[in-house]
Amino acid sequence: MSAPSKSELLREAGRAARARYRAGLVRPTAGVAPGLTQANMIALPRDWAFDFLLYAQRNPRSCPVLDVTDPGSRATVLAEGADVARDIPLYRVWRDGALAAEVPDAAAAFEAAGDLVTFLIGCSFTFETPLQEAGIEVRHIADGTNVPMYLTNRPCRPAGRLQGPMVVSMRPIPAGRVADAALISGRFPAVHGAPVHVGDPAGLGIADLARPDFGDPVRVEPGEVPVFWACGVTPQAAVMASRVPFAVTHAPGHMFVTDVPDAAYHV
Amino acid sequence: MSAPSKSELLREAGRAARARYRAGLVRPTAGVAPGLTQANMIALPRDWAFDFLLYAQRNPRSCPVLDVTDPGSRATVLAEGADVARDIPLYRVWRDGALAAEVPDAAAAFEAAGDLVTFLIGCSFTFETPLQEAGIEVRHIADGTNVPMYLTNRPCRPAGRLQGPMVVSMRPIPAGRVADAALISGRFPAVHGAPVHVGDPAGLGIADLARPDFGDPVRVEPGEVPVFWACGVTPQAAVMASRVPFAVTHAPGHMFVTDVPDAAYHV
Repeated sequence: MSAPSKSELLREAGRAARARYRAGLVRPTAGVAPGLTQANMIALPRDWAFDFLLYAQRNPRSCPVLDVTDPGSRATVLAEGADVARDIPLYRVWRDGALAAEVPDAAAAFEAAGDLVTFLIGCSFTFETPLQEAGIEVRHIADGTNVPMYLTNRPCRPAGRLQGPMVVSMRPIPAGRVADAALISGRFPAVHGAPVHVGDPAGLGIADLARPDFGDPVRVEPGEVPVFWACGVTPQAAVMASRVPFAVTHAPGHMFVTDVPDAAYHV
Repeated sequence: MSAPSKSELLREAGRAARARYRAGLVRPTAGVAPGLTQANMIALPRDWAFDFLLYAQRNPRSCPVLDVTDPGSRATVLAEGADVARDIPLYRVWRDGALAAEVPDAAAAFEAAGDLVTFLIGCSFTFETPLQEAGIEVRHIADGTNVPMYLTNRPCRPAGRLQGPMVVSMRPIPAGRVADAALISGRFPAVHGAPVHVGDPAGLGIADLARPDFGDPVRVEPGEVPVFWACGVTPQAAVMASRVPFAVTHAPGHMFVTDVPDAAYHV
């Protein structure tokens, strides 16, 4: 019997991660199954699906769509045998634009809603492996915390009934490696691509880096610059700002681990 | 008074081209306003818009969406002051999946339909300027004909009520420049990107290069290889295959000339 190939080992790591989350493990997914693409999730009633898909099309840096399920389906081409309502570590259920519950399993919410259309959206965790391979420390992975995310003063382009600000994730990068981080992440446009902003948090309307709107704060060491990437929590900001009647999303930092190698989104 | 900048001259070339088409000129647009992005167009009733946007999302090589209008609107962010129902040289009106009319002005068809949503989709004419700048002859421009386009045996991924085959455009490229053509076009994923197939027309189900399904045949000289790119006529193949009740599209090869420089879609 021959040893499993690298791609078989990768897929097995993805399957195993999803199985742990389905069994109830709740933990941020940065650094999990390195080499596999991770995805943000938002599920909306069929009646809101066009507005959302258009919102994503008009705001591709924040909302790069990787897959969309058929109405009522919980299967995705991104991960064989996966259930988008159960295989994410932590879900948020939203009513009238407000957080109604955080649950480790959203099957009941999906079943009650009936015809949800689920959108899987690129996540910057995907290019963290190439950053690390280039010798750039990813602070929240090194420290075992969730990535810090911030609401910004940048409005997204509205679509139908949806509007809201861009959300960004932040990673402190040594000044001498910022250009490398931009080039490396820029090769992955489907998972947010290059930074949208480097340094100057005030320019994004961020008053205090130590108080992120989502996730955990991270250390910024002397000689490091805060670097901001568009973030797939942007749809949740739209749910809030637009008072969407009903939605299910992942909890920030708790992503859907796919079977798709990072390299598939490399340009 | 200072001389106009290069970008002002470019925008003026786009405006002038659209004005000629609005005034009634009917002619393929390859080679027109070089340096500006050109777009395929399909307008569908509001009720079909989600199915189509999902079809595009699931088939991004063929249907890279550059802009989507609000229902009933004929304005686009891609070209200031443009009218998507009048500024394309030639339109096709479709009923029940069959070509009902070719008209140089679709304003009446838009007004009768009322709530059309218009999709503007990337066009490979956009990377022909960089190909030419690299010394690669674009045969249909050199010969003053329309690009040849073919229905293939490759099914697109269906979405809702929409299904159909991928359509490709073909350019003969000298064998020693095929890799260059792949690299150059590959830098423009929003306008179809790299070729989907090189050589071997039979592999795409194309029986005879001299008989394209759309556009004109071109000379293939000794030492040249037929190179195939995904084509924005793919939505028209879906209209036919899915018997869509009503649609307006551009006529193949007769594109919407935008104000957006090619460089905006360079990665």
